[in-house]
Amino acid sequence: MILAKVEGCVVATKKNAKMTGNKLLLVRPMVIDSASASEFKPGLSTLVAVDSLGAGENQVVLVVQGSSARLGTDAKDSPVDAVVIGIVDTVDMAKRILYRAP
Amino acid sequence: MILAKVEGCVVATKKNAKMTGNKLLLVRPMVIDSASASEFKPGLSTLVAVDSLGAGENQVVLVVQGSSARLGTDAKDSPVDAVVIGIVDTVDMAKRILYRAP
Amino acid sequence: MILAKVEGCVVATKKNAKMTGNKLLLVRPMVIDSASASEFKPGLSTLVAVDSLGAGENQVVLVVQGSSARLGTDAKDSPVDAVVIGIVDTVDMAKRILYRAP
Amino acid sequence: MILAKVEGCVVATKKNAKMTGNKLLLVRPMVIDSASASEFKPGLSTLVAVDSLGAGENQVVLVVQGSSARLGTDAKDSPVDAVVIGIVDTVDMAKRILYRAP
Amino acid sequence: MILAKVEGCVVATKKNAKMTGNKLLLVRPMVIDSASASEFKPGLSTLVAVDSLGAGENQVVLVVQGSSARLGTDAKDSPVDAVVIGIVDTVDMAKRILYRAP
Repeated sequence: MILAKVEGCVVATKKNAKMTGNKLLLVRPMVIDSASASEFKPGLSTLVAVDSLGAGENQVVLVVQGSSARLGTDAKDSPVDAVVIGIVDTVDMAKRILYRAP
Repeated sequence: MILAKVEGCVVATKKNAKMTGNKLLLVRPMVIDSASASEFKPGLSTLVAVDSLGAGENQVVLVVQGSSARLGTDAKDSPVDAVVIGIVDTVDMAKRILYRAP
Repeated sequence: MILAKVEGCVVATKKNAKMTGNKLLLVRPMVIDSASASEFKPGLSTLVAVDSLGAGENQVVLVVQGSSARLGTDAKDSPVDAVVIGIVDTVDMAKRILYRAP
Repeated sequence: MILAKVEGCVVATKKNAKMTGNKLLLVRPMVIDSASASEFKPGLSTLVAVDSLGAGENQVVLVVQGSSARLGTDAKDSPVDAVVIGIVDTVDMAKRILYRAP
Repeated sequence: MILAKVEGCVVATKKNAKMTGNKLLLVRPMVIDSASASEFKPGLSTLVAVDSLGAGENQVVLVVQGSSARLGTDAKDSPVDAVVIGIVDTVDMAKRILYRAP
């Protein structure tokens, strides 16, 4: 899984019928580039993940990708490859708290 | 899923029998390189995705990859790993509209 | 799927029994680095794909990867992750023909 | 599979119900950049993997990714794409011991 | 599939029960960076693949990744994502022999 920040959302009216009702979030993977890092850095691109937990903008979330993403939704036959499966409270690294949800 | 722009198409007469009737689009992933970005940037390469929605050139679409792509087609046993599952109307980021379909 | 050029082949006498009879092609992904590109560029590395269509050297082919690759072969339980599923006739981009098979 | 070092952990109270009880480790892939390398180098980013073996901070572990990760957990329908499946004792390269667990 | 060279091995005593008996090889993907290349170049990192064929150090092997890797082992429910499925005899490129096993 990856840590990512919710930055926005995507609307697509014309879509695969099995996607109806899925909220689509624009999320940016967060990078921790060394063990001595004191904060997250935003990654260089974004992906689109289905929200299953009511995540809001700027929240740090846990995103599962690939075929396992389907198991994070209510419909196992949805054509999705990235789903939010957790809203992160804290990230601890080397005994320090690197991130704590506001 | 990723956001991508339709840039062209691919024709292959000699192909796997299960691919018959699949329209093959050449799509370019779109990059949003920071939260303050005011527009999409085209990515550095392209991929080929099956069209399931009648997407046209220059439209921004949502592409699902991997095994989940098969669920975006009519035939679950098609040998495909990328399928268009949505035609994007808007992309919102940090309360701004980053993209709106013409 | 990706576009790739057939550059060679790989022979492995000692192999998994389910691979017997599979022709192994060395293929190089082709890159189209911008919408104004006038030609393909060869990518920086290669992969090995099973041939299911009799593709020859220098032909541009369509390669499917991941679990869907297995559906492009005769045996769904083959341990393969890349298979040629089309021999490309033309690639059109922005109303121009970028590639046409000789 | 990849070799990775456990650097921390992630807590998410609000999560997919099937994730309950899964300990989430922050792990950093380790890089061996040439055959003459005398040590591991930490990679540039991190991922989040489910612990199934009680791995502790600074241990080098073996991480499986993708759909196979689900088979490394007790529940095959968990929405997970990275799981720790081994705690590494030694890594040998070119007849030398590159890493030995303390 | 990818071409890789066997560079070492990994030992993990504490591991998922389904991994018992699997020999874990440290393999380095080999890069062929252009069609005029006269030799392989070692790639920048390594991965860990299950051996199913008795591959030895310095041999060039064919590695399958992802869910298909499981089909290269005796146990389809093993949590593995990379398996050696062939020991390479020759790699031909552009009518030249780029590699021949000693």
